[in-house]
Amino acid sequence: MSGKHVVVLGAGFAGLHAVRVLSREPGVQVTLVDRNNYHLFQPLLYQVATAGLEAPQIAFPVRAFLRKHKNARFLLGTAEGVDPKARVLWVEGRPVPYDYLIVGTGTRTNDFGLPGVARYGYGLKDLDDAMKIRDRILSACEEAVRTSDPERRKALLTFVVVGGGPTGVELAGALGEVRRHVIARDYPDLDLSEIRVILIENSTRLLDAFAPSSAQYAQRFLEKLGVELRFGERVTEVTPDAVRLQSGSTIPSFTVVWSAGVTGQALPGLPITRGNRVATTPELYVPEHPSVYVAGDMNFLEHKDGRPHPQVAPTAMQQGALAAQNILRELRGQEKQVFRYKDKGSMATLGRSHAIAEIGHLKMRGFPAWGAWLAVHLYYLIGFRNRMMVLSNWAYSYFTYDFAVRIMHNRHSFPVLNEPAQEPVKS
Amino acid sequence: MSGKHVVVLGAGFAGLHAVRVLSREPGVQVTLVDRNNYHLFQPLLYQVATAGLEAPQIAFPVRAFLRKHKNARFLLGTAEGVDPKARVLWVEGRPVPYDYLIVGTGTRTNDFGLPGVARYGYGLKDLDDAMKIRDRILSACEEAVRTSDPERRKALLTFVVVGGGPTGVELAGALGEVRRHVIARDYPDLDLSEIRVILIENSTRLLDAFAPSSAQYAQRFLEKLGVELRFGERVTEVTPDAVRLQSGSTIPSFTVVWSAGVTGQALPGLPITRGNRVATTPELYVPEHPSVYVAGDMNFLEHKDGRPHPQVAPTAMQQGALAAQNILRELRGQEKQVFRYKDKGSMATLGRSHAIAEIGHLKMRGFPAWGAWLAVHLYYLIGFRNRMMVLSNWAYSYFTYDFAVRIMHNRHSFPVLNEPAQEPVKS
Repeated sequence: MSGKHVVVLGAGFAGLHAVRVLSREPGVQVTLVDRNNYHLFQPLLYQVATAGLEAPQIAFPVRAFLRKHKNARFLLGTAEGVDPKARVLWVEGRPVPYDYLIVGTGTRTNDFGLPGVARYGYGLKDLDDAMKIRDRILSACEEAVRTSDPERRKALLTFVVVGGGPTGVELAGALGEVRRHVIARDYPDLDLSEIRVILIENSTRLLDAFAPSSAQYAQRFLEKLGVELRFGERVTEVTPDAVRLQSGSTIPSFTVVWSAGVTGQALPGLPITRGNRVATTPELYVPEHPSVYVAGDMNFLEHKDGRPHPQVAPTAMQQGALAAQNILRELRGQEKQVFRYKDKGSMATLGRSHAIAEIGHLKMRGFPAWGAWLAVHLYYLIGFRNRMMVLSNWAYSYFTYDFAVRIMHNRHSFPVLNEPAQEPVKS
Repeated sequence: MSGKHVVVLGAGFAGLHAVRVLSREPGVQVTLVDRNNYHLFQPLLYQVATAGLEAPQIAFPVRAFLRKHKNARFLLGTAEGVDPKARVLWVEGRPVPYDYLIVGTGTRTNDFGLPGVARYGYGLKDLDDAMKIRDRILSACEEAVRTSDPERRKALLTFVVVGGGPTGVELAGALGEVRRHVIARDYPDLDLSEIRVILIENSTRLLDAFAPSSAQYAQRFLEKLGVELRFGERVTEVTPDAVRLQSGSTIPSFTVVWSAGVTGQALPGLPITRGNRVATTPELYVPEHPSVYVAGDMNFLEHKDGRPHPQVAPTAMQQGALAAQNILRELRGQEKQVFRYKDKGSMATLGRSHAIAEIGHLKMRGFPAWGAWLAVHLYYLIGFRNRMMVLSNWAYSYFTYDFAVRIMHNRHSFPVLNEPAQEPVKS
């Protein structure tokens, strides 16, 4: 198998686990391609957005990871498409020929085409998103101190999260704690009752991947924390200063975080199916192109009841590893294996000492679930230094009730309330 | 003195030390104004630029600082000028009336009007500067791996520091270590001999604030580390892909850090003198406007031989505190005191286990000086959390030879070598 070249696109969970497996065969050459020079630990992004962690603490340099994988190289760049017949991946205008390709490009925020979401809403999928949300919240609080207009102040201090899945719940919980423990202490001039965190969910419950009892526990915790929950509400538009709902009501707000859905980051040249994902065989390759594997959030392989596997980190890790194993098996003339999902359970943190976790039939909540959540997230975080830094930050926050990273890199300005959005000047 | 309003402009060392003194008098109202929401510990900026520290670790939120100073408020904004007769400071179009004003706006990079420095060079005065340099270095290394043009690769891998003062020396030392310990391990495809760190100084020695023996020690250390020192060279121009020197030679480079000088951040409305600084009485107020005090780098008070006090942190702390004390003394009807500079000595770190320090007649170098440097910088860093985080990072780097924060937030692109710079398209 000497000289075979495997290109791994995406340094997420799927890509890194694929590289780990491939590095066991020194004869195989591996090129890892990513548009960022780091692996991002997405499950903790919401803590960067809420000033609990520093951005580099959940990012691990790809080249540091590759130091111990001697048969792998890194290529920084954005993939533009693939020519599966010619076996060439195109990266920023250059051809990267491959024998096998593993695609693990993950997902991006899905605005469902709703007006204003992409322009005025904030996604939470990468470091830039998280740092923008942090800057936005800090800028809004500062502006609220300065304004003399009470309506404007209320809109500045209303933080809306759309989507009651794990990301929305974790973010809303963290914002609820920032409101109570940070803004209240940092801004003695602001009235705590004017600071609102609103979570909008169009179904009748939170966290539909969890059992109803876990979801109810989460709901009660968030309500006690002061988070306003709005069920059965559908967003129809985000404007520069408000969220409009299907029920007809409008919530004035300058900060709307959109965590209501994701869609695959399709790679031109590959056939796509529902959710912009790619259907594969149970061995994880694309039926039409057996040298192309798809792993992680992008993979649409039916799991049960016609539904694909959940778009979570364990799926990506398991699929990335299996895709690599199947490539090595083919090179050795062995039979490929089909993907069998090992359900590692689901967990979501709600706030200090509170989380929910479901592992098989075991349901945990409160402090034990929170402890399990901490342990699992530290375990999967890559790099000794990042673990040490994140643990230090968590310990600090736990004992001080502080979210310390309240550093505004770029100050946001806010439009005057109820003014029409400015159109770009035409020349 | 109840109800007197003291406005402190700038949350640097001078401003924070002024606020600390003023908070002893609860009857005085204090407003601290800064364009950032954090106090920046500038002495460690070069470590952010070289991926040793994370940006928020050397920044402390102003509002966290003010939590224990109950008579002080914070106003985020850029000061545009002062009307000393009306006793009004203008901040982003709003008047902020004061009874006393303490100006501690510090300095910014001075390009001496040399062509290209502001446009193509990189200053190192704020967090944004430091993060840009980090992004630039990482982007240049990635681009060097991709390019097939050897001349372009050399220019990408040539990092030039202009100015042999403490900032230039500390940055060049850190870059020398990044070259040897990080780039060499992260980029096995690059040839270490092609990666160059060049320090340009127009005098005949480094660190003119230090004794010649200390400067020679620094010079030997940098040379052993592989930093190229060019003495007696004056930069005449920075272009998109090179530095031009008065001697006629040109160094192809895409990354030129300018640490050759600073100039005061003048506040319109105040009289300025040499270096854009403000001359004050020995009591630190402006002779024409006794209610306006100037402290720190901006203050031009003759020290000895007609030279002002050095623009270092201890001067700023001492002047900030004295300005506040003199205001309180005036309010109490006491006599003001004149500024007496307590020389805390000078220190500069060169690299792992190597620094120089001069305290009075005591000259230290090597490991003892390095230990003293660490202790002093940790001591003056504000906030328990930042100290803990910085110390953890230093310990990690010390034991692993690693500079871990190699996270590229914004990728830079580089022009084609020897092409004329593109002018903006005229409409």
